[in-house]
Amino acid sequence: MERKELLYEGRDKKVYATDDPEKLIVSYKDDAIAQNGKKKGTIRGKGVINNRITNVLMQLLEKQGIPTHFVQQLDERETVVRKARMIPLKVIVRNIVAGSLSTRVGQPEGTRLKSTILEYRYKDDVLGDPLINQYHAFALEICTPEELATIDRYALRANGILKECLQELDITLVDFKLEFGRLSDGTIVLADEISPDTSRFWDTRTGEKLDKDRFRRDLGGTEDAYQEVLNRLIGSM
Amino acid sequence: MERKELLYEGRDKKVYATDDPEKLIVSYKDDAIAQNGKKKGTIRGKGVINNRITNVLMQLLEKQGIPTHFVQQLDERETVVRKARMIPLKVIVRNIVAGSLSTRVGQPEGTRLKSTILEYRYKDDVLGDPLINQYHAFALEICTPEELATIDRYALRANGILKECLQELDITLVDFKLEFGRLSDGTIVLADEISPDTSRFWDTRTGEKLDKDRFRRDLGGTEDAYQEVLNRLIGSM
Repeated sequence: MERKELLYEGRDKKVYATDDPEKLIVSYKDDAIAQNGKKKGTIRGKGVINNRITNVLMQLLEKQGIPTHFVQQLDERETVVRKARMIPLKVIVRNIVAGSLSTRVGQPEGTRLKSTILEYRYKDDVLGDPLINQYHAFALEICTPEELATIDRYALRANGILKECLQELDITLVDFKLEFGRLSDGTIVLADEISPDTSRFWDTRTGEKLDKDRFRRDLGGTEDAYQEVLNRLIGSM
Repeated sequence: MERKELLYEGRDKKVYATDDPEKLIVSYKDDAIAQNGKKKGTIRGKGVINNRITNVLMQLLEKQGIPTHFVQQLDERETVVRKARMIPLKVIVRNIVAGSLSTRVGQPEGTRLKSTILEYRYKDDVLGDPLINQYHAFALEICTPEELATIDRYALRANGILKECLQELDITLVDFKLEFGRLSDGTIVLADEISPDTSRFWDTRTGEKLDKDRFRRDLGGTEDAYQEVLNRLIGSM
Protein backbone atom coordinates (compact mmCIF):
# COMPACT_ATOMS: atom_id res chain seq x y z
CA MET A 1 0.00 0.00 0.00
CA GLU A 2 1.34 3.41 -0.98
CA ARG A 3 0.82 6.99 0.13
CA LYS A 4 -1.20 9.14 -2.28
CA GLU A 5 -2.22 12.75 -1.67
CA LEU A 6 -1.80 14.41 1.71
CA LEU A 7 -5.33 14.83 3.10
CA TYR A 8 -4.56 16.48 6.41
CA GLU A 9 -1.64 17.63 8.47
CA GLY A 10 -2.18 18.01 12.20
CA ARG A 11 0.12 18.82 15.08
CA ASP A 12 1.44 15.32 15.49
CA LYS A 13 0.47 13.42 12.37
CA LYS A 14 -0.02 13.56 8.62
CA VAL A 15 -2.80 11.59 6.96
CA TYR A 16 -2.54 10.36 3.36
CA ALA A 17 -5.02 8.84 0.93
CA THR A 18 -4.26 5.40 -0.52
CA ASP A 19 -5.42 3.35 -3.52
CA ASP A 20 -8.16 1.92 -1.33
CA PRO A 21 -10.94 4.47 -0.74
CA GLU A 22 -11.66 2.84 2.65
CA LYS A 23 -8.06 3.10 3.90
CA LEU A 24 -5.66 5.85 4.91
CA ILE A 25 -2.02 6.03 5.91
CA VAL A 26 -1.12 7.87 9.10
CA SER A 27 2.43 9.20 9.44
CA TYR A 28 3.64 10.23 12.91
CA LYS A 29 5.75 13.38 13.27
CA ASP A 30 8.32 14.39 15.89
CA ASP A 31 6.82 17.89 16.31
CA ALA A 32 5.58 18.73 19.78
CA ILE A 33 3.15 21.51 20.54
CA ALA A 34 1.63 22.44 23.89
CA GLN A 35 -0.31 25.23 25.59
CA ASN A 36 -2.62 25.62 22.61
CA GLY A 37 0.27 26.25 20.22
CA LYS A 38 2.18 28.68 22.44
CA LYS A 39 4.93 26.13 23.19
CA LYS A 40 6.56 24.43 20.20
CA GLY A 41 9.43 22.00 19.91
CA THR A 42 10.60 18.60 18.77
CA ILE A 43 10.73 15.37 20.70
CA ARG A 44 13.28 13.37 18.76
CA GLY A 45 12.05 9.91 17.79
CA LYS A 46 8.57 10.61 19.18
CA GLY A 47 6.82 9.72 15.91
CA VAL A 48 8.42 6.30 15.77
CA ILE A 49 7.67 5.57 19.42
CA ASN A 50 4.07 6.80 19.32
CA ASN A 51 3.37 4.81 16.17
CA ARG A 52 4.52 1.63 17.95
CA ILE A 53 2.80 2.35 21.27
CA THR A 54 -0.49 3.29 19.60
CA ASN A 55 -0.49 0.15 17.49
CA VAL A 56 0.29 -2.13 20.42
CA LEU A 57 -2.53 -0.60 22.48
CA MET A 58 -5.06 -0.43 19.62
CA GLN A 59 -4.53 -4.14 18.91
CA LEU A 60 -4.96 -4.93 22.60
CA LEU A 61 -8.29 -3.05 22.66
CA GLU A 62 -9.46 -4.56 19.37
CA LYS A 63 -8.78 -8.04 20.74
CA GLN A 64 -10.96 -7.19 23.76
CA GLY A 65 -13.90 -6.16 21.60
CA ILE A 66 -13.45 -2.43 21.01
CA PRO A 67 -13.55 -1.70 17.27
CA THR A 68 -10.57 0.43 16.19
CA HIS A 69 -9.37 1.93 12.95
CA PHE A 70 -6.08 -0.04 13.07
CA VAL A 71 -5.23 -2.17 10.04
CA GLN A 72 -1.48 -2.72 9.83
CA GLN A 73 1.81 -1.03 10.63
CA LEU A 74 3.61 -0.13 7.38
CA ASP A 75 6.97 0.99 8.68
CA GLU A 76 8.39 2.60 11.79
CA ARG A 77 6.48 5.89 11.36
CA GLU A 78 3.50 4.84 9.26
CA THR A 79 0.37 2.81 9.78
CA VAL A 80 -2.58 1.86 7.57
CA VAL A 81 -5.93 2.65 9.19
CA ARG A 82 -9.57 2.42 8.18
CA LYS A 83 -10.98 5.66 6.86
CA ALA A 84 -13.42 7.20 9.33
CA ARG A 85 -15.29 10.51 9.44
CA MET A 86 -13.94 11.89 12.70
CA ILE A 87 -16.32 13.05 15.43
CA PRO A 88 -14.94 16.43 16.60
CA LEU A 89 -14.78 15.37 20.22
CA LYS A 90 -11.85 14.73 22.53
CA VAL A 91 -12.98 12.19 25.09
CA ILE A 92 -10.78 12.44 28.18
CA VAL A 93 -10.85 9.56 30.66
CA ARG A 94 -9.60 10.41 34.14
CA ASN A 95 -8.72 8.14 37.06
CA ILE A 96 -6.55 10.57 39.02
CA VAL A 97 -6.69 14.38 39.19
CA ALA A 98 -4.08 16.08 36.98
CA GLY A 99 -3.66 18.99 34.59
CA SER A 100 -6.68 21.17 33.83
CA LEU A 101 -8.96 19.17 36.15
CA SER A 102 -6.81 20.15 39.12
CA THR A 103 -7.32 23.85 38.38
CA ARG A 104 -10.98 23.44 37.44
CA VAL A 105 -12.15 21.70 40.59
CA GLY A 106 -9.46 22.84 43.02
CA GLN A 107 -8.06 19.41 43.91
CA PRO A 108 -4.33 18.68 44.05
CA GLU A 109 -2.74 16.68 41.27
CA GLY A 110 -2.55 13.05 42.31
CA THR A 111 -5.93 12.90 44.06
CA ARG A 112 -7.51 9.54 43.27
CA LEU A 113 -11.06 10.04 41.97
CA LYS A 114 -13.98 8.24 43.64
CA SER A 115 -15.22 7.26 40.18
CA THR A 116 -13.93 7.58 36.62
CA ILE A 117 -14.54 10.94 34.96
CA LEU A 118 -15.25 11.24 31.24
CA GLU A 119 -14.84 14.74 29.82
CA TYR A 120 -15.78 15.89 26.35
CA ARG A 121 -13.92 18.68 24.60
CA TYR A 122 -15.28 20.09 21.37
CA LYS A 123 -12.38 19.92 18.90
CA ASP A 124 -12.00 23.43 17.57
CA ASP A 125 -8.64 25.19 17.44
CA VAL A 126 -10.15 28.67 17.29
CA LEU A 127 -12.33 28.05 20.35
CA GLY A 128 -9.49 26.26 22.19
CA ASP A 129 -11.22 22.88 22.45
CA PRO A 130 -13.82 24.00 25.02
CA LEU A 131 -15.19 21.62 27.63
CA ILE A 132 -18.75 20.67 26.76
CA ASN A 133 -21.24 18.13 28.05
CA GLN A 134 -23.55 15.66 26.36
CA TYR A 135 -26.35 18.21 25.92
CA HIS A 136 -24.01 20.55 24.03
CA ALA A 137 -22.88 17.64 21.83
CA PHE A 138 -26.49 16.85 20.90
CA ALA A 139 -27.65 20.48 20.41
CA LEU A 140 -24.59 21.26 18.27
CA GLU A 141 -25.16 17.98 16.36
CA ILE A 142 -21.63 16.79 17.09
CA CYS A 143 -23.01 13.29 17.64
CA THR A 144 -26.28 11.55 18.41
CA PRO A 145 -27.28 10.28 21.87
CA GLU A 146 -26.88 6.71 20.56
CA GLU A 147 -23.37 7.45 19.29
CA LEU A 148 -22.34 9.06 22.57
CA ALA A 149 -23.66 6.09 24.55
CA THR A 150 -21.43 3.84 22.41
CA ILE A 151 -18.46 6.19 22.84
CA ASP A 152 -18.90 6.29 26.62
CA ARG A 153 -19.13 2.51 26.78
CA TYR A 154 -15.98 2.06 24.69
CA ALA A 155 -14.10 4.74 26.63
CA LEU A 156 -14.90 3.19 30.00
CA ARG A 157 -14.08 -0.32 28.77
CA ALA A 158 -10.80 0.91 27.23
CA ASN A 159 -9.95 2.46 30.59
CA GLY A 160 -10.41 -0.86 32.37
CA ILE A 161 -8.30 -2.76 29.83
CA LEU A 162 -5.49 -0.20 29.63
CA LYS A 163 -5.34 0.41 33.39
CA GLU A 164 -4.86 -3.29 34.03
CA CYS A 165 -2.33 -3.80 31.22
CA LEU A 166 -0.25 -0.79 32.28
CA GLN A 167 -0.44 -1.60 35.99
CA GLU A 168 1.39 -4.86 35.25
CA LEU A 169 4.19 -2.74 33.76
CA ASP A 170 4.30 -0.50 36.85
CA ILE A 171 2.68 2.33 34.93
CA THR A 172 -0.26 4.16 36.53
CA LEU A 173 -2.84 5.32 33.98
CA VAL A 174 -3.72 8.78 35.29
CA ASP A 175 -5.75 9.97 32.29
CA PHE A 176 -5.88 9.65 28.52
CA LYS A 177 -7.66 11.07 25.51
CA LEU A 178 -9.60 9.14 22.89
CA GLU A 179 -11.09 10.18 19.58
CA PHE A 180 -13.69 8.30 17.60
CA GLY A 181 -14.83 8.20 13.98
CA ARG A 182 -17.61 6.75 11.87
CA LEU A 183 -16.85 4.17 9.16
CA SER A 184 -18.77 4.53 5.89
CA ASP A 185 -21.56 2.35 7.32
CA GLY A 186 -21.80 4.48 10.48
CA THR A 187 -19.99 2.06 12.78
CA ILE A 188 -18.19 3.91 15.58
CA VAL A 189 -14.50 3.03 15.81
CA LEU A 190 -11.72 4.18 18.10
CA ALA A 191 -9.30 6.22 15.98
CA ASP A 192 -6.40 8.66 16.43
CA GLU A 193 -3.63 7.59 18.82
CA ILE A 194 -3.00 6.41 22.38
CA SER A 195 0.48 7.47 23.39
CA PRO A 196 2.47 9.50 25.94
CA ASP A 197 1.38 12.54 23.88
CA THR A 198 -2.27 11.92 24.67
CA SER A 199 -2.09 10.20 28.07
CA ARG A 200 -0.64 10.71 31.51
CA PHE A 201 1.50 7.73 32.53
CA TRP A 202 3.16 7.80 35.96
CA ASP A 203 5.77 5.30 37.08
CA THR A 204 3.91 3.42 39.80
CA ARG A 205 6.99 3.01 42.03
CA THR A 206 8.73 6.38 41.65
CA GLY A 207 5.83 8.64 40.60
CA GLU A 208 7.99 9.87 37.71
CA LYS A 209 6.07 11.24 34.74
CA LEU A 210 6.45 9.16 31.58
CA ASP A 211 4.48 11.40 29.24
CA LYS A 212 4.16 14.75 27.49
CA ASP A 213 4.02 16.64 30.81
CA ARG A 214 7.85 16.31 30.72
CA PHE A 215 7.78 18.54 27.61
CA ARG A 216 4.90 20.79 28.77
CA ARG A 217 6.58 21.46 32.12
CA ASP A 218 10.21 21.48 30.92
CA LEU A 219 11.16 18.53 33.11
CA GLY A 220 13.72 17.17 30.63
CA GLY A 221 14.21 13.54 29.59
CA THR A 222 11.11 13.48 27.41
CA GLU A 223 12.59 11.15 24.76
CA ASP A 224 13.81 8.70 27.42
CA ALA A 225 10.42 8.66 29.12
CA TYR A 226 8.59 7.86 25.87
CA GLN A 227 11.15 5.14 25.08
CA GLU A 228 10.73 3.69 28.57
CA VAL A 229 6.97 3.27 28.05
CA LEU A 230 7.57 1.51 24.73
CA ASN A 231 10.28 -0.72 26.22
CA ARG A 232 7.99 -1.87 29.03
CA LEU A 233 5.13 -2.53 26.59
CA ILE A 234 7.34 -4.53 24.20
CA GLY A 235 9.05 -6.35 27.03
CA SER A 236 5.64 -7.58 28.15
CA MET A 237 4.72 -9.13 24.81
CA MET B 1 -43.42 33.32 61.86
CA GLU B 2 -40.44 35.44 62.88
CA ARG B 3 -36.83 35.82 61.78
CA LYS B 4 -34.30 34.36 64.22
CA GLU B 5 -30.53 34.27 63.64
CA LEU B 6 -29.00 35.13 60.28
CA LEU B 7 -27.70 31.82 58.86
CA TYR B 8 -26.26 33.01 55.57
CA GLU B 9 -25.85 36.16 53.55
CA GLY B 10 -25.34 35.76 49.83
CA ARG B 11 -25.09 38.22 46.97
CA ASP B 12 -28.81 38.64 46.53
CA LYS B 13 -30.43 37.20 49.63
CA LYS B 14 -30.20 36.72 53.35
CA VAL B 15 -31.42 33.53 54.99
CA TYR B 16 -32.70 33.41 58.57
CA ALA B 17 -33.59 30.62 60.96
CA THR B 18 -37.13 30.49 62.40
CA ASP B 19 -38.84 28.82 65.36
CA ASP B 20 -39.56 25.86 63.13
CA PRO B 21 -36.40 23.78 62.53
CA GLU B 22 -37.77 22.74 59.11
CA LYS B 23 -38.41 26.30 57.91
CA LEU B 24 -36.31 29.31 56.95
CA ILE B 25 -37.02 32.90 55.99
CA VAL B 26 -35.43 34.25 52.81
CA SER B 27 -35.02 38.03 52.53
CA TYR B 28 -34.29 39.48 49.07
CA LYS B 29 -31.75 42.32 48.77
CA ASP B 30 -31.38 45.09 46.18
CA ASP B 31 -27.63 44.49 45.77
CA ALA B 32 -26.49 43.52 42.30
CA ILE B 33 -23.18 41.86 41.54
CA ALA B 34 -21.88 40.65 38.18
CA GLN B 35 -18.68 39.46 36.50
CA ASN B 36 -17.77 37.30 39.47
CA GLY B 37 -17.89 40.22 41.89
CA LYS B 38 -16.00 42.71 39.71
CA LYS B 39 -19.13 44.75 38.97
CA LYS B 40 -21.20 45.87 41.95
CA GLY B 41 -24.27 48.06 42.24
CA THR B 42 -27.84 48.34 43.36
CA ILE B 43 -31.01 47.70 41.40
CA ARG B 44 -33.59 49.68 43.36
CA GLY B 45 -36.64 47.62 44.26
CA LYS B 46 -35.11 44.43 42.85
CA GLY B 47 -35.54 42.48 46.09
CA VAL B 48 -39.26 43.19 46.22
CA ILE B 49 -39.75 42.30 42.54
CA ASN B 50 -37.66 39.12 42.62
CA ASN B 51 -39.46 37.94 45.75
CA ARG B 52 -42.81 38.26 43.96
CA ILE B 53 -41.65 36.82 40.62
CA THR B 54 -39.95 33.84 42.27
CA ASN B 55 -43.00 33.05 44.37
CA VAL B 56 -45.38 33.25 41.41
CA LEU B 57 -43.18 30.93 39.34
CA MET B 58 -42.44 28.50 42.19
CA GLN B 59 -46.15 28.09 42.87
CA LEU B 60 -46.79 27.52 39.17
CA LEU B 61 -44.14 24.76 39.08
CA GLU B 62 -45.34 23.21 42.36
CA LYS B 63 -48.88 23.02 40.95
CA GLN B 64 -47.49 21.17 37.93
CA GLY B 65 -45.79 18.55 40.07
CA ILE B 66 -42.29 19.90 40.68
CA PRO B 67 -41.58 19.94 44.43
CA THR B 68 -40.26 23.33 45.56
CA HIS B 69 -39.12 24.82 48.85
CA PHE B 70 -41.84 27.53 48.72
CA VAL B 71 -44.14 27.81 51.74
CA GLN B 72 -45.59 31.30 51.98
CA GLN B 73 -44.76 34.91 51.23
CA LEU B 74 -44.35 36.85 54.49
CA ASP B 75 -44.10 40.39 53.24
CA GLU B 76 -42.86 42.21 50.17
CA ARG B 77 -39.22 41.15 50.62
CA GLU B 78 -39.51 37.98 52.67
CA THR B 79 -40.70 34.45 52.11
CA VAL B 80 -40.91 31.34 54.27
CA VAL B 81 -39.31 28.31 52.63
CA ARG B 82 -38.66 24.72 53.60
CA LYS B 83 -35.18 24.12 54.94
CA ALA B 84 -33.07 22.17 52.48
CA ARG B 85 -29.41 21.15 52.37
CA MET B 86 -28.36 22.86 49.14
CA ILE B 87 -26.63 20.85 46.40
CA PRO B 88 -23.67 23.02 45.27
CA LEU B 89 -24.71 22.95 41.63
CA LYS B 90 -26.04 25.67 39.34
CA VAL B 91 -28.21 23.97 36.75
CA ILE B 92 -28.50 26.19 33.69
CA VAL B 93 -31.25 25.44 31.19
CA ARG B 94 -30.70 26.90 27.72
CA ASN B 95 -33.10 27.23 24.79
CA ILE B 96 -31.27 29.95 22.85
CA VAL B 97 -27.54 30.74 22.71
CA ALA B 98 -26.57 33.68 24.97
CA GLY B 99 -23.86 34.75 27.39
CA SER B 100 -21.00 32.36 28.15
CA LEU B 101 -22.36 29.69 25.79
CA SER B 102 -21.91 32.04 22.85
CA THR B 103 -18.21 32.43 23.62
CA ARG B 104 -17.72 28.78 24.51
CA VAL B 105 -19.10 27.25 21.33
CA GLY B 106 -18.63 30.19 18.94
CA GLN B 107 -22.28 30.70 18.03
CA PRO B 108 -23.91 34.14 17.91
CA GLU B 109 -26.25 35.16 20.71
CA GLY B 110 -29.82 34.47 19.62
CA THR B 111 -29.13 31.16 17.84
CA ARG B 112 -32.02 28.81 18.59
CA LEU B 113 -30.66 25.48 19.87
CA LYS B 114 -31.67 22.21 18.16
CA SER B 115 -32.33 20.74 21.59
CA THR B 116 -32.37 22.03 25.17
CA ILE B 117 -28.98 22.25 26.85
CA LEU B 118 -28.53 21.60 30.56
CA GLU B 119 -25.25 22.84 32.02
CA TYR B 120 -23.93 22.17 35.49
CA ARG B 121 -21.71 24.64 37.30
CA TYR B 122 -20.02 23.63 40.52
CA LYS B 123 -20.92 26.38 43.01
CA ASP B 124 -17.62 27.58 44.39
CA ASP B 125 -16.74 31.28 44.56
CA VAL B 126 -12.99 30.67 44.75
CA LEU B 127 -13.04 28.44 41.64
CA GLY B 128 -15.45 30.78 39.82
CA ASP B 129 -18.32 28.27 39.50
CA PRO B 130 -16.57 26.04 36.93
CA LEU B 131 -18.52 24.17 34.29
CA ILE B 132 -18.56 20.47 35.11
CA ASN B 133 -20.42 17.44 33.79
CA GLN B 134 -22.26 14.57 35.44
CA TYR B 135 -19.09 12.48 35.87
CA HIS B 136 -17.42 15.32 37.80
CA ALA B 137 -20.52 15.66 39.98
CA PHE B 138 -20.42 11.97 40.89
CA ALA B 139 -16.63 11.74 41.39
CA LEU B 140 -16.62 14.86 43.57
CA GLU B 141 -19.66 13.49 45.45
CA ILE B 142 -21.69 16.62 44.73
CA CYS B 143 -24.75 14.43 44.15
CA THR B 144 -25.61 10.84 43.33
CA PRO B 145 -26.58 9.60 39.84
CA GLU B 146 -30.16 9.10 41.12
CA GLU B 147 -30.32 12.68 42.43
CA LEU B 148 -28.97 14.10 39.17
CA ALA B 149 -31.52 12.11 37.16
CA THR B 150 -34.26 13.70 39.29
CA ILE B 151 -32.71 17.16 38.91
CA ASP B 152 -32.48 16.80 35.11
CA ARG B 153 -36.09 15.65 34.92
CA TYR B 154 -37.30 18.58 37.04
CA ALA B 155 -35.15 21.09 35.13
CA LEU B 156 -36.44 19.96 31.73
CA ARG B 157 -40.04 19.88 32.95
CA ALA B 158 -39.68 23.34 34.52
CA ASN B 159 -38.35 24.58 31.18
CA GLY B 160 -41.44 23.35 29.36
CA ILE B 161 -43.82 24.89 31.90
CA LEU B 162 -42.03 28.25 32.17
CA LYS B 163 -41.45 28.58 28.41
CA GLU B 164 -45.16 28.13 27.75
CA CYS B 165 -46.30 30.44 30.57
CA LEU B 166 -43.89 33.21 29.55
CA GLN B 167 -44.60 32.87 25.84
CA GLU B 168 -48.20 33.82 26.56
CA LEU B 169 -46.84 37.05 28.10
CA ASP B 170 -44.68 37.73 25.03
CA ILE B 171 -41.54 36.82 26.95
CA THR B 172 -39.04 34.45 25.35
CA LEU B 173 -37.29 32.21 27.87
CA VAL B 174 -33.70 32.22 26.60
CA ASP B 175 -32.08 30.51 29.58
CA PHE B 176 -32.40 30.27 33.35
CA LYS B 177 -30.60 28.85 36.37
CA LEU B 178 -32.01 26.48 38.95
CA GLU B 179 -30.66 25.26 42.27
CA PHE B 180 -31.86 22.27 44.22
CA GLY B 181 -31.71 21.10 47.81
CA ARG B 182 -32.44 18.02 49.90
CA LEU B 183 -35.14 18.09 52.58
CA SER B 184 -34.36 16.31 55.84
CA ASP B 185 -35.80 13.07 54.38
CA GLY B 186 -33.63 13.38 51.23
CA THR B 187 -36.41 14.58 48.93
CA ILE B 188 -35.02 16.80 46.15
CA VAL B 189 -36.78 20.17 45.95
CA LEU B 190 -36.34 23.17 43.69
CA ALA B 191 -34.96 26.00 45.85
CA ASP B 192 -33.31 29.41 45.45
CA GLU B 193 -35.02 31.86 43.06
CA ILE B 194 -36.28 32.19 39.49
CA SER B 195 -36.11 35.84 38.52
CA PRO B 196 -34.62 38.30 36.01
CA ASP B 197 -31.41 37.98 38.09
CA THR B 198 -31.10 34.29 37.26
CA SER B 199 -32.79 34.07 33.86
CA ARG B 200 -32.63 35.65 30.43
CA PHE B 201 -36.03 36.98 29.40
CA TRP B 202 -36.36 38.65 25.98
CA ASP B 203 -39.42 40.58 24.86
CA THR B 204 -40.76 38.35 22.09
CA ARG B 205 -41.91 41.26 19.92
CA THR B 206 -39.07 43.77 20.34
CA GLY B 207 -36.18 41.50 21.37
CA GLU B 208 -35.54 43.86 24.29
CA LYS B 209 -33.75 42.30 27.25
CA LEU B 210 -35.88 42.12 30.41
CA ASP B 211 -33.24 40.74 32.76
CA LYS B 212 -29.93 41.24 34.53
CA ASP B 213 -28.04 41.61 31.22
CA ARG B 214 -29.32 45.24 31.35
CA PHE B 215 -27.17 45.68 34.48
CA ARG B 216 -24.26 43.47 33.32
CA ARG B 217 -23.99 45.28 29.98
CA ASP B 218 -24.87 48.81 31.21
CA LEU B 219 -27.96 49.02 29.01
CA GLY B 220 -29.92 51.15 31.50
CA GLY B 221 -33.56 50.72 32.51
CA THR B 222 -32.88 47.66 34.65
CA GLU B 223 -35.51 48.50 37.29
CA ASP B 224 -38.17 49.11 34.62
CA ALA B 225 -37.36 45.83 32.89
CA TYR B 226 -37.70 43.82 36.12
CA GLN B 227 -40.97 45.62 36.92
CA GLU B 228 -42.26 44.88 33.40
CA VAL B 229 -41.73 41.14 33.89
CA LEU B 230 -43.61 41.27 37.19
CA ASN B 231 -46.44 43.34 35.72
CA ARG B 232 -46.98 40.89 32.89
CA LEU B 233 -46.92 37.93 35.30
CA ILE B 234 -49.41 39.55 37.67
CA GLY B 235 -51.59 40.78 34.83
CA SER B 236 -51.92 37.19 33.67
CA MET B 237 -53.25 35.88 36.97
